Amino acid sequence: MRLQRVGAVGAERPVLLGTDGHHYDLSGLTDDLTPEFFRDGGPARVARAHAAGELFRIDVAGQRVGAPLARPGAVLCIGQNYAAHAAESGAKPPAEPILFYKGPNALAGPEDDVLIPRGSERTDWEVELGVVIGKRARYLGPDEDPLDYVAGYVLSNDVSERTVQLDAPGGQWSKGKSSETFNPLGPWVLTAEELPVPQAVRLRSWVNGETRQDSSTADMVFSVAEIVRHLSQYLVLEPGDLVNTGTPEGVALSGRFPYLRAGDVMELEAEGLGRHRNRLVQA
Amino acid sequence: MRLQRVGAVGAERPVLLGTDGHHYDLSGLTDDLTPEFFRDGGPARVARAHAAGELFRIDVAGQRVGAPLARPGAVLCIGQNYAAHAAESGAKPPAEPILFYKGPNALAGPEDDVLIPRGSERTDWEVELGVVIGKRARYLGPDEDPLDYVAGYVLSNDVSERTVQLDAPGGQWSKGKSSETFNPLGPWVLTAEELPVPQAVRLRSWVNGETRQDSSTADMVFSVAEIVRHLSQYLVLEPGDLVNTGTPEGVALSGRFPYLRAGDVMELEAEGLGRHRNRLVQA
Repeated sequence: MRLQRVGAVGAERPVLLGTDGHHYDLSGLTDDLTPEFFRDGGPARVARAHAAGELFRIDVAGQRVGAPLARPGAVLCIGQNYAAHAAESGAKPPAEPILFYKGPNALAGPEDDVLIPRGSERTDWEVELGVVIGKRARYLGPDEDPLDYVAGYVLSNDVSERTVQLDAPGGQWSKGKSSETFNPLGPWVLTAEELPVPQAVRLRSWVNGETRQDSSTADMVFSVAEIVRHLSQYLVLEPGDLVNTGTPEGVALSGRFPYLRAGDVMELEAEGLGRHRNRLVQA
Repeated sequence: MRLQRVGAVGAERPVLLGTDGHHYDLSGLTDDLTPEFFRDGGPARVARAHAAGELFRIDVAGQRVGAPLARPGAVLCIGQNYAAHAAESGAKPPAEPILFYKGPNALAGPEDDVLIPRGSERTDWEVELGVVIGKRARYLGPDEDPLDYVAGYVLSNDVSERTVQLDAPGGQWSKGKSSETFNPLGPWVLTAEELPVPQAVRLRSWVNGETRQDSSTADMVFSVAEIVRHLSQYLVLEPGDLVNTGTPEGVALSGRFPYLRAGDVMELEAEGLGRHRNRLVQA
């Protein structure tokens, strides 16, 4: 199933994008795609209602598509999770998943404008597979399948201001990762049963129509299952949390491409997860 | 005003702790002390209702006190913001505020048990002044007073697992900062009009009754106003966000004191902001 949110910023409505290409209103089942929706078995309720023909078609033509998560409890990000990207960033592949957080109010829709922060000279793109947590995950044991704790997958852009990220005192990346609109997300959450093994998803990005990244989640250093299991040893993952799983090579930080400027158009695509198209605008 | 939440975990009720020492029920004014409560002028509504005698006294004797924020949008933390603590951590005072995030589901009540993570050998305390944001802060200009964007203050413990924080690959601290119960908070939010200048608050901590930290927010490298203004240049602070403003010297990381063990009792106090008493328990 493809779960979406459509409508103006702050007034999005939850919908199902059916396999028939039509949209179905979910506002009778849930107010929004909140952490509570995922915690309380929302996706299964949607599936049952749709199978029973209980959902009404809704025409959303011309409406804005929002990020398909309303206010996740946390946005957790994994750094340097593709060997070639670690190398282009001047680092070796890490021995365990690197965790940092992104401010959850950085989420934006898949076609919203992305704001270049004031004073920024090194704003960069990062196409990623986003993982939506479906069940509380705490100290997962060796006999548990971490993918049972995943509600779905979503195309995510971990936009980064490299000077702030990398030159800030203390070496903490989050200040250069959390600017407003720095996490375009969507256009839908693909529920997990449609992607039982998330390790062969082609991820691509373009700037002004020119290819930047073209890789696959097959090249991850740590798989989605390994990431979820690892994080659960240190913190509790909650339903509705978003985990950005790292970006492959081909970002501006490599030195091979210019950084983003106002007027540029950044596009992302992932097999089965749809496409982003964001115009860059000066904040 | 002192705003509190009392009741079992997940079922807390918002109350006002009056200057007369009695508690007043706020559940007629708001469901909880949520980001929306702060965004929609909740504290001013409480003050008006209390002045008009419209709040009912409620007996909360024997009830658990919860963290006085329900699910903040983000928990932002400032690192090495006291010169003497930076020195004991082996670092110089930073040239600008260091930002990292803590998972917002790490919040705990001021007398809840704190869980030592499995495998941890270096769990440490950090008494801090917590700042609750009251108004959306974005690119604050030189003519704006950052303290106008503060709703109140709260005693906060930025519990840290030092091996995970400092030895993790990538140098990112968040994985050692976000374990469950790693942010005891409370017992109340003191609204900002009661602390117009937050730069002379005495902060103390004890372990098993022995003094560990005894300092003052007068010794901050960056004041609350400077932190709020600085962060607003990089990201948007939202109502209800919690900003932990850094800890003074006297933590176990200094080498002067042993790390926490199961059975230890950790106490914190800040003038006007109350007291914590947390027992350490193995997760």
